[in-house]
Amino acid sequence: MQFRIDAQDGAARAATIQTAHSVIQTPVFMPVGTVGAVKALDALDLQNHLSPQIILGNTYHLYLRPGDEIVKAMGGLHGFTRFPKSFLTDSGGFQAFSLSDNVKIEEDGITFRSHIDGSKHHFTPQKVLDIQYNLGSDIMMILDDLVALPATRERIRESIERTTRWAQRSIDYHRRKQMEGIGVDQNIFAIIQGGTDKEFRKISATELCALDFDGFAIGGLSVGEANREMYDTVEWTTPFMPTDKPRYLMGVGTPEDLVENVERGVDMFDCVMPTRNARNGTLFTSFGKVTIKAARYATDEEPIDPECGCIVCRTYSRAYLRHLFRAKELTYFRLATIHNLYYYLDLMRQMREAILEGKFAEFKRKFYRKRDNG
Amino acid sequence: MQFRIDAQDGAARAATIQTAHSVIQTPVFMPVGTVGAVKALDALDLQNHLSPQIILGNTYHLYLRPGDEIVKAMGGLHGFTRFPKSFLTDSGGFQAFSLSDNVKIEEDGITFRSHIDGSKHHFTPQKVLDIQYNLGSDIMMILDDLVALPATRERIRESIERTTRWAQRSIDYHRRKQMEGIGVDQNIFAIIQGGTDKEFRKISATELCALDFDGFAIGGLSVGEANREMYDTVEWTTPFMPTDKPRYLMGVGTPEDLVENVERGVDMFDCVMPTRNARNGTLFTSFGKVTIKAARYATDEEPIDPECGCIVCRTYSRAYLRHLFRAKELTYFRLATIHNLYYYLDLMRQMREAILEGKFAEFKRKFYRKRDNG
Repeated sequence: MQFRIDAQDGAARAATIQTAHSVIQTPVFMPVGTVGAVKALDALDLQNHLSPQIILGNTYHLYLRPGDEIVKAMGGLHGFTRFPKSFLTDSGGFQAFSLSDNVKIEEDGITFRSHIDGSKHHFTPQKVLDIQYNLGSDIMMILDDLVALPATRERIRESIERTTRWAQRSIDYHRRKQMEGIGVDQNIFAIIQGGTDKEFRKISATELCALDFDGFAIGGLSVGEANREMYDTVEWTTPFMPTDKPRYLMGVGTPEDLVENVERGVDMFDCVMPTRNARNGTLFTSFGKVTIKAARYATDEEPIDPECGCIVCRTYSRAYLRHLFRAKELTYFRLATIHNLYYYLDLMRQMREAILEGKFAEFKRKFYRKRDNG
Repeated sequence: MQFRIDAQDGAARAATIQTAHSVIQTPVFMPVGTVGAVKALDALDLQNHLSPQIILGNTYHLYLRPGDEIVKAMGGLHGFTRFPKSFLTDSGGFQAFSLSDNVKIEEDGITFRSHIDGSKHHFTPQKVLDIQYNLGSDIMMILDDLVALPATRERIRESIERTTRWAQRSIDYHRRKQMEGIGVDQNIFAIIQGGTDKEFRKISATELCALDFDGFAIGGLSVGEANREMYDTVEWTTPFMPTDKPRYLMGVGTPEDLVENVERGVDMFDCVMPTRNARNGTLFTSFGKVTIKAARYATDEEPIDPECGCIVCRTYSRAYLRHLFRAKELTYFRLATIHNLYYYLDLMRQMREAILEGKFAEFKRKFYRKRDNG
């Protein structure tokens, strides 16, 4: 993976990442394709209507169904899904932790039962990399030791220390595997933990960033803390991260979160928000959120966002989308998803443009002003 | 509406229908777009991947939600849905009869309660035309008096007689409205009833076909009778129908049904089968049906039908579609729907081609031979 900073404006960065499958211009938002499809869309929708350079796959889901061996047999995620650009896969740890029953975390790894059929499984730092080798993702995330909050400081400290030990095992395993010719084109990111605690974040960042990873993520945020706490934690943590490697803020967030964290030096984001909110009837626009079921849209001939260039806004009225949503038509979910993802991806492009022109502060002012007037 | 027979091969006809919105080449299959969208697809999918010249809308559904006045305010079905070709709308009677509670049929019309909110409504032959004027469909179906089977011969006879009386009221009302400048570009079809009873079919066909309708439908079939009974009834009925107007067999059917009834002189069909079966995991191919969830497709790299030219078969494997189906991904429903409709529309094109070449019998032999070998 090649990484190059194209421009910097304050702490905000515009960079270019080159993987084996695509050139990724940052700041970048990665649509979530949990089981090998961005919900309601297919690979042609992505290519024709959205042009993302990278999307996410969830290791936990793909491991359980269809199974990573099957994905491997079908040519990895790229061959299986026909999405030819980059994939990032998470470690599966978060879903094992949050979706499964009877989760047990030990020094060796995580034991859990499938939410699909109750079958018992065991994830270790090495195992989740083996799965991701089969998936063939361009960026692999390592297993980390997650903590259910609230937790004692001892438990949080233990989790950070274990995460570092697992990170060491992961990077050692990966570099050894690459020597054997496995995962040669695959990159590996570590995940900084520590909640909103400055000391823990500093320890976690310092320890992990001393290791030879291809990039670093900030995990454990956007879990219910105040926005300000999230922004402060990111601002505190990024100085401990290398400038010459990608920075990925996991599971974030709202359009405002993206703007605030790009300003603080984050390069990569993912979140289910644009896709999930689309399905629930909340559409993102340059002037704020639209609740499409509202009665005032019943005969509204305007597109969702008159300033949006997406295929949905160029074709359909709010009235038609409202009708499809109320009738629970399958058609609705795809159209709303295309619009929301277009909005997110376009927002990232606008931010990159502003950084390249050294006008991020101006961009940010306009971004908020429009929403206030919306 | 203009209607021209392009070729005839035995009883099978290839014709051209010109409406205000499209040129329809027959035999034609009309995808069902119940509430103003073919389920899982949008108008651009239809245009880009399927190119139907006419689709169906359901008057009952559109009347209840969003309401025909709203559709009218949005430019009718064409403006609202952005599908620019022809629409055929049914009378709403069948759904009022089958989906609603407390249905009451009297000489005046049908009283029923909405399946959505229980509200009370009354459909008369005139009222369902008023609704269809608002919808702006190219072909409107008249209200008929439906009978729940089993029924006495008296009740069936009464329904046929009432259907004729309602047809007279419908055509009188429509021609008067057209004189007033309403529905000028809209066409009106009557519906021949009578179950599988030859005498009743003859009476119904003779009485209705004496009236000045733009086309005639055969209704009340594909409701559980044996295939042979359906085919025989159509074969018996078509000779009582004018040769210079379109013949529409409502709610039919399987690919085999289409072939058999085209052979017997039917021009137009509609059915939820390709779309509903797609969603349920049954895919149509030139060699018969595919149950996509079957374990044998788990690592099958072939497209659904190697002979199919649809965008789905040109892009995705059976393995990927099976996975999406098992994971209940929204993406699946659209891809499967596109494939099944493509198969249906392509089958009609093949039949038209065969009729134009005077080779329908040969086409039919090959059609069945492939399925036997499948």
